[in-house]
Amino acid sequence: MSQYIGNKLEITVFGQSHAPSIGVTIDGLPEGLKIDFDAVQAFLDRRAPGKNPWSTPRKEADVPEFISGLKGNVTCGAPLCAIIRNTNTRSKDYGNLATVPRPSHADFAAMQKYKESYDPAGGGQFSGRMTAPLCIAGAICNGILAAKGITVGSHILSIGNVQEKNFDPVAIDAATLNTVKAKSFATLDDELGQAMIDNVLAAKAEGDSVGGVVECAAVGLPAGVGETFFDSLESRLSQVVFAIPAVKGIEFGAGFGYAALKGSQANDPFCMTEGGKVQTATNRHGGILGGLTSGMPLVFRAAFKPTPSISKPQQSVDLATGQIVELKIEGRHDPCIVPRAAVAVEAATAIVLADLLL
Amino acid sequence: MSQYIGNKLEITVFGQSHAPSIGVTIDGLPEGLKIDFDAVQAFLDRRAPGKNPWSTPRKEADVPEFISGLKGNVTCGAPLCAIIRNTNTRSKDYGNLATVPRPSHADFAAMQKYKESYDPAGGGQFSGRMTAPLCIAGAICNGILAAKGITVGSHILSIGNVQEKNFDPVAIDAATLNTVKAKSFATLDDELGQAMIDNVLAAKAEGDSVGGVVECAAVGLPAGVGETFFDSLESRLSQVVFAIPAVKGIEFGAGFGYAALKGSQANDPFCMTEGGKVQTATNRHGGILGGLTSGMPLVFRAAFKPTPSISKPQQSVDLATGQIVELKIEGRHDPCIVPRAAVAVEAATAIVLADLLL
Amino acid sequence: MSQYIGNKLEITVFGQSHAPSIGVTIDGLPEGLKIDFDAVQAFLDRRAPGKNPWSTPRKEADVPEFISGLKGNVTCGAPLCAIIRNTNTRSKDYGNLATVPRPSHADFAAMQKYKESYDPAGGGQFSGRMTAPLCIAGAICNGILAAKGITVGSHILSIGNVQEKNFDPVAIDAATLNTVKAKSFATLDDELGQAMIDNVLAAKAEGDSVGGVVECAAVGLPAGVGETFFDSLESRLSQVVFAIPAVKGIEFGAGFGYAALKGSQANDPFCMTEGGKVQTATNRHGGILGGLTSGMPLVFRAAFKPTPSISKPQQSVDLATGQIVELKIEGRHDPCIVPRAAVAVEAATAIVLADLLL
Amino acid sequence: MSQYIGNKLEITVFGQSHAPSIGVTIDGLPEGLKIDFDAVQAFLDRRAPGKNPWSTPRKEADVPEFISGLKGNVTCGAPLCAIIRNTNTRSKDYGNLATVPRPSHADFAAMQKYKESYDPAGGGQFSGRMTAPLCIAGAICNGILAAKGITVGSHILSIGNVQEKNFDPVAIDAATLNTVKAKSFATLDDELGQAMIDNVLAAKAEGDSVGGVVECAAVGLPAGVGETFFDSLESRLSQVVFAIPAVKGIEFGAGFGYAALKGSQANDPFCMTEGGKVQTATNRHGGILGGLTSGMPLVFRAAFKPTPSISKPQQSVDLATGQIVELKIEGRHDPCIVPRAAVAVEAATAIVLADLLL
Repeated sequence: MSQYIGNKLEITVFGQSHAPSIGVTIDGLPEGLKIDFDAVQAFLDRRAPGKNPWSTPRKEADVPEFISGLKGNVTCGAPLCAIIRNTNTRSKDYGNLATVPRPSHADFAAMQKYKESYDPAGGGQFSGRMTAPLCIAGAICNGILAAKGITVGSHILSIGNVQEKNFDPVAIDAATLNTVKAKSFATLDDELGQAMIDNVLAAKAEGDSVGGVVECAAVGLPAGVGETFFDSLESRLSQVVFAIPAVKGIEFGAGFGYAALKGSQANDPFCMTEGGKVQTATNRHGGILGGLTSGMPLVFRAAFKPTPSISKPQQSVDLATGQIVELKIEGRHDPCIVPRAAVAVEAATAIVLADLLL
Repeated sequence: MSQYIGNKLEITVFGQSHAPSIGVTIDGLPEGLKIDFDAVQAFLDRRAPGKNPWSTPRKEADVPEFISGLKGNVTCGAPLCAIIRNTNTRSKDYGNLATVPRPSHADFAAMQKYKESYDPAGGGQFSGRMTAPLCIAGAICNGILAAKGITVGSHILSIGNVQEKNFDPVAIDAATLNTVKAKSFATLDDELGQAMIDNVLAAKAEGDSVGGVVECAAVGLPAGVGETFFDSLESRLSQVVFAIPAVKGIEFGAGFGYAALKGSQANDPFCMTEGGKVQTATNRHGGILGGLTSGMPLVFRAAFKPTPSISKPQQSVDLATGQIVELKIEGRHDPCIVPRAAVAVEAATAIVLADLLL
Repeated sequence: MSQYIGNKLEITVFGQSHAPSIGVTIDGLPEGLKIDFDAVQAFLDRRAPGKNPWSTPRKEADVPEFISGLKGNVTCGAPLCAIIRNTNTRSKDYGNLATVPRPSHADFAAMQKYKESYDPAGGGQFSGRMTAPLCIAGAICNGILAAKGITVGSHILSIGNVQEKNFDPVAIDAATLNTVKAKSFATLDDELGQAMIDNVLAAKAEGDSVGGVVECAAVGLPAGVGETFFDSLESRLSQVVFAIPAVKGIEFGAGFGYAALKGSQANDPFCMTEGGKVQTATNRHGGILGGLTSGMPLVFRAAFKPTPSISKPQQSVDLATGQIVELKIEGRHDPCIVPRAAVAVEAATAIVLADLLL
Repeated sequence: MSQYIGNKLEITVFGQSHAPSIGVTIDGLPEGLKIDFDAVQAFLDRRAPGKNPWSTPRKEADVPEFISGLKGNVTCGAPLCAIIRNTNTRSKDYGNLATVPRPSHADFAAMQKYKESYDPAGGGQFSGRMTAPLCIAGAICNGILAAKGITVGSHILSIGNVQEKNFDPVAIDAATLNTVKAKSFATLDDELGQAMIDNVLAAKAEGDSVGGVVECAAVGLPAGVGETFFDSLESRLSQVVFAIPAVKGIEFGAGFGYAALKGSQANDPFCMTEGGKVQTATNRHGGILGGLTSGMPLVFRAAFKPTPSISKPQQSVDLATGQIVELKIEGRHDPCIVPRAAVAVEAATAIVLADLLL
């Protein structure tokens, strides 16, 4: 199933990398919501490939066409549908993949599930390209959040062995998030950002790829937002974040670092701000207590594996013949998905939060 | 919402720590499924408190009563409902908590969401006790998996600063999983297990608590099981695992370790076993490719924060008066939730997998 | 699946006629909702059997036990669960039914679906008894509606060949609905009501049964409530009303009578009331336009088949032997389900409306 | 919400009459399903307007474009999306409707729900045109059913005061259903069909419209298909059938006629066929017992109100001024929706049945 069923929103992402179109339907948007097409486009442009030396040279004109749900630029209450035409697809690059699964790709598992119906061209429905419609939904949800004074942003925390410091989980604010968003390479520290870029370019030069970590934050959230148990905020966010291909881990606040702490070190004491607001003095809980927002900044990290497509030779098996084969993957691929994926992580966050706040 | 809606199963967990009962309804079980009451009880007993020096001295007689859905011990196709009566509750322990949120607990967020309707006694619907009905469902799902040759198990990977080695993600097998399950403290290495127990007891002696990591595995899975995008296996598993109170991170296979790798180091090459089966030579992907099972062992880790309830003094705010108060939490609590929570992680895994395989 | 998933509420009805319990979980109720236990009991008592010569002599003590979701008598935000113990079951009455399906019962279809797991005793999960938990949910939802000035009621429109006049679809009001509810036999016209009772008693004397029609109304509804297409108000109401065993037809407003009309006869012109409110002058549309409430009284009718269980001899087939057999159904059954089922129709209506208005 | 969530299929219908496109996404189709584009087009052509004197002169080129979910003409496992461009829209016909609700239309209720976001042009999301994407889904589901030997068909049972006889609920077969489908006016009896056409043309000549009843049947169904309670087959079918604009009633088998019968008259006795199959001798139950298929032909009827759009003058209120106005509806409309709607009823039936049988 390719649906997110939230409290209010039901979102279906459809398409395959090499289908005529990819797209998204969003049911449950309030009527009368103005869609800022420029903001949607700007958000998609942050995810778009082909602009920088560190991303794939594929040029995808990711211009969504809104085909239903609007009266002018305002939602009319009917499901909104937006599509993006797939134009720049070169299926011949994938000719030799019909029976040879690419390591770390979906191919092998997909071939077992879908048999010959699976189309490995471009990664089919498993392509990172499917995050474009996710970002359409995310951009619309960002608009909903903005009207409530909530800002979602992210930075590239690490790529390969270069890591910058985390967001300050107490002090992070909208200005910082917006500053990072405006950068072509979204790090807090530009020198470390350049070192990360160097990492990516070095991997690219070797026909290799590299992984990384995205840290995402949302500020301006009221306390007490969310649901419980199976629909805890961690459950909801992780469900959508893991929809993004290549994510293999997620942690909230102190996350895995919590495991080594004692309660007396880990618990965030409550205090009063000078303005008389109750909050926590520290924010190891990452803005979520009991599956609900605590009113502190929401902070979580998502780990991305390296792009599986590398041109270095790899070992695979031809499923048709049972022979071990050496595979060299052709095609144009991102040596590091992390800079573009960060936008998808923001989209996932915006979707989950907007749904809960509608 | 307190529901898991899978492909076939719809599971509602209900109850609060101090309500008359907690329980679970499971809709969508196939008719004719024999319920092994002894196996369910044995599974619950692994989670039950009060047996060891490292868990809470509360004695909860966690004996489920099956009140619908069965004809004898066989499912009849109607929704199954099982309840556990809450008997050993001492609400007076919670008398002073009505307006003073406990650090790192759900209290503060729940008070914002539910206002005066929230009952902090025993943690209300946020209590770790809610994992008991989860385990009833998990035990039944384990029975479904066992009939298909699939075994789910876990070990305590770390507590505080003591960590044992990971499961071997390629070689892990049912025998190892079952051996660990039979232990009173579920580690691979008993010496390190004793060091972890010592960690827990030391924290307990100080009125403190300690966190840890559970590693869970499932073996015997066919390849190609799962759904895509929002319902990737990582999405589904993390949704249910984050329903367990105190989980703050999850990672699959190499997880966060992936971020520092290059593709050529990270990708798992395909090979042929001597028996002629195609698999991967390594298993950094943790048994999931493209959100689907790869046929390799499923391996993931969940990070638990330290039990928030500690008797050491902590700072909080009385929301009624706005005064800073020093809080000492009474009541009987686990100094470390991890040993018992490991069973809940297995339950979560069994639920997700059984649903996909029905 | 035995779930109603509305906009806010997720309701699971569980149990079988001869299981230890029947019950209901309701997730999504707002926290802080006061449950009027007396009102719930009074509502259930209207549905309860054994009080009158025209219903089954089974005495079911339909007293719900609320086992979760409350803090005192107020919802706490966790799922509410209420159960009713099954005590007065005489399974031996059903001994000869294991392989001989009762005409017009679920038996034959259920035996194909559930095979030997199906327990025909008391009708299993197909029993009319399952409307008791539906009525618990309905009574709670009635409380939600009452707080919004909305009243749901019904009358017995016909039994066998005796029919009284319809509700006046424009003038029907809460007072009338409440007056009818207070009657032991819920008709507008008591003489016709007595004629219906005579019909039932005559059928009972012959070991036969009789069908009828319930007309249900809701007043006080604002306009514009509901969803569209698959979730039109007609879709929602019919989904829940057809959950009630023995319902075989539903029509809204003029319903089947619409088919013979011309548009100029059928359309309801708009007018202004003296108070300056826009409404329709007539109400053939039954209070629903485009799947949404129009602000006029909601009016619909549900047709019930005669109780299938009759003691007159009937022809069936012993599925074990393939022999034609003459079946005489023992046990205590309602000669006419309609008077009790009317309460279930109200419950269904209250559930659908309250969910949309929360 | 505009979604049908079945056991396997999740179907979203999107679009408005005057949006750029209308369309449908279908998630959950099995991979490897061959889509017969010609069969889909033929099915849509039966619903298409503009071919006959008794339908609207609008020419809608209802040619679906499949934009995702296929590899060639075979499903690949990803959600299928098909759209139809809206080309022949004349919004100026609707200019005077912005504040004057049309009697019996969705306008008034929609204006309350959606306020100024509602676009009455062409009926917006309430347009009968939305049944075109429903029919795309229905046609695909018909293909699934055909492969299982199941045929769905319908006939026009009545229009205005002309009614033909019902399907024989025991003897109805695929040949009869296919014969009726091939007719330009789908009645069993062509003379009565001509009388119905005369009815329509007479209404048209007067600027009026007329209602009717569609009877739908499905043959070849095995017994025991379906779910229980809220998901009874009657619940599911009525949910989808009431999605079709203008449906105001539905009855299964004897339906409302059941109400006047005694059990001894109503119950369908079981018998053995010469071939040794157990079935019922009569089929007043319409092929559904206990919410499940009985193995007998599924038979139900849906009542349609007359097309609300008539050019005869009608009374309405200008909501902007509060003045009573006389409304004459311009535009091109069907004087009777029934002949085209019958195809949508078949589509609804095919969707529900295919979902249950996948």
